[in-house]
Amino acid sequence: MTSSLSKYQEAIEKALSNYQLPEQPANLYDPIRYFLNLGGKRMRPVLTLMSHELFHPEYNRAMAAALSIELFHNFSLIHDDIMDEAPLRRGKETVHSKWNSNIAILSGDVLLVEGFKLLTTYDGTVLKRTLELFNRTATEVCDGQQMDMDFESLDEVPIDDYLKMIRLKTAVLVGCSLEMGAIVGEASDSDCKELYNFGVNLGIAFQLQDDILDVYAHGDQFGKQIGGDIISNKKTYLLLRALEDADEEQKERLRALLQETDPQTKVKGVMALYEELNIREKATQRMNEYHATAMGNLNDIQVAEDKKEALRLLADFLLNRQH
Amino acid sequence: MTSSLSKYQEAIEKALSNYQLPEQPANLYDPIRYFLNLGGKRMRPVLTLMSHELFHPEYNRAMAAALSIELFHNFSLIHDDIMDEAPLRRGKETVHSKWNSNIAILSGDVLLVEGFKLLTTYDGTVLKRTLELFNRTATEVCDGQQMDMDFESLDEVPIDDYLKMIRLKTAVLVGCSLEMGAIVGEASDSDCKELYNFGVNLGIAFQLQDDILDVYAHGDQFGKQIGGDIISNKKTYLLLRALEDADEEQKERLRALLQETDPQTKVKGVMALYEELNIREKATQRMNEYHATAMGNLNDIQVAEDKKEALRLLADFLLNRQH
Repeated sequence: MTSSLSKYQEAIEKALSNYQLPEQPANLYDPIRYFLNLGGKRMRPVLTLMSHELFHPEYNRAMAAALSIELFHNFSLIHDDIMDEAPLRRGKETVHSKWNSNIAILSGDVLLVEGFKLLTTYDGTVLKRTLELFNRTATEVCDGQQMDMDFESLDEVPIDDYLKMIRLKTAVLVGCSLEMGAIVGEASDSDCKELYNFGVNLGIAFQLQDDILDVYAHGDQFGKQIGGDIISNKKTYLLLRALEDADEEQKERLRALLQETDPQTKVKGVMALYEELNIREKATQRMNEYHATAMGNLNDIQVAEDKKEALRLLADFLLNRQH
Repeated sequence: MTSSLSKYQEAIEKALSNYQLPEQPANLYDPIRYFLNLGGKRMRPVLTLMSHELFHPEYNRAMAAALSIELFHNFSLIHDDIMDEAPLRRGKETVHSKWNSNIAILSGDVLLVEGFKLLTTYDGTVLKRTLELFNRTATEVCDGQQMDMDFESLDEVPIDDYLKMIRLKTAVLVGCSLEMGAIVGEASDSDCKELYNFGVNLGIAFQLQDDILDVYAHGDQFGKQIGGDIISNKKTYLLLRALEDADEEQKERLRALLQETDPQTKVKGVMALYEELNIREKATQRMNEYHATAMGNLNDIQVAEDKKEALRLLADFLLNRQH
């Protein structure tokens, strides 16, 4: 797995480092160069290349589409970091912290346009179909970000709304990454659709796993503070599920815990409630359902099974980060 | 002129009011609806329709391209207003004032994507060529905005840099509006290029006129405070030209005036210096040169002269606002 994954990752890093951006105005392009160099696993563009390879042996044909996804993803991170007032991204200063918000707004804008430039290197039907997908996805990611911001001022969020939000904010871009490769590879409409759904379901499963690991990850493999979501009252699947399943007494206890100022007492208390309500199992079950649906989508794609091995392994890899 | 202009303006208003945006998330789409309803002369999309009509009788074919330009323009205004901390736009609250900066960032992002969606309704070569033009222009407008922000922290800006900045920030979008119509009308490469240059030169002339009228407009037709640029030390063509042409004594006087805190003394003093240095005439001459070049571009377009009448009249109208 790792060797197959790193082949794609290296190709993407190389293409990104060869990607020409203007030198001037430096205050516009230096932040973009800086941010693209912060690294990351490049999972989305990897998915584009892998998906394309199901239908066409030469994955480089999909590189422009793969990079357009990566640039879009970075655009959305730069703007989200402003909105979330996040000081750090991947352990380094965010663009608005290192420069300022104005520069972060404008660098993000340019990066979004760069994504479109990459797609515009295609022609004919491939151009039109990748654009239609990209446009729709870009809008949905913004819709999801707005929903997420709106949720902050709500007391309760129905679980269905939460699932819709993570679908829009995170999962559709994973679906888009995969369908992009399929479109460039001139796959059938049905295979395009299955790959898209595979990505969306995988993306939701991944996000649910993120919520679970924030509370239940062991050791430091996960790289984040355990219980950070609990301490910050983040509306995760776990918290919303607990609010829905709690009886009156439990609900009152949970509401009191949300006001608790001592982090240790808070994390311990919320985890005890999660235990009473079987929240970890319920969330894991939900995650597994999405994972199973995703695998069903992958099965339904009309290409030889052995070709799907890389995607299947990558999906398992992404959903087993704690092992 | 007015009747021909209002025909296009009405068609654009109608198309904009028929333009469907989602209802939800309301915090994302309400600001866009609000901002698009603030009005404006819709000059850029009018230019697209007029340009298209040089080559094709049915101007509605260019409506999607015309609206894409208008949406792009509004995207850039929403984001610029955040960066400039502007409380008002066309006498009404800006999006970040009425809602907040996060909502203004995200609404702007969605509006930019909506522009791309409109272009994606075209096919084949028209799709590819309009996109290439739109991408390039969008980047240049951001480059121009960054240059403008960078200029704020500089003591002196060479006039050539200033002209480059207004070309990028303002004029290329006028050129793009015109070439867009020509591409949709399947004009020759040479006519596309002339229309683009016509627009760029017209756009620069228009911006220079803006600088002149801020100081020399009479009465309230112009709708802005007379001398506002002088009071705020805005680096206009007039100020930069005065700094370039001044001798040592004049330069010292000008530098002292830039520190002056009484607005009346400041405006009066700077205007006296402009008078000594013939700045108004020099700026007007420069504006007229760009105007003449623009008219030369229009002449070189290979369509019957009578068809160009609407564009010629509109150019005259735009450059004679004080009469």
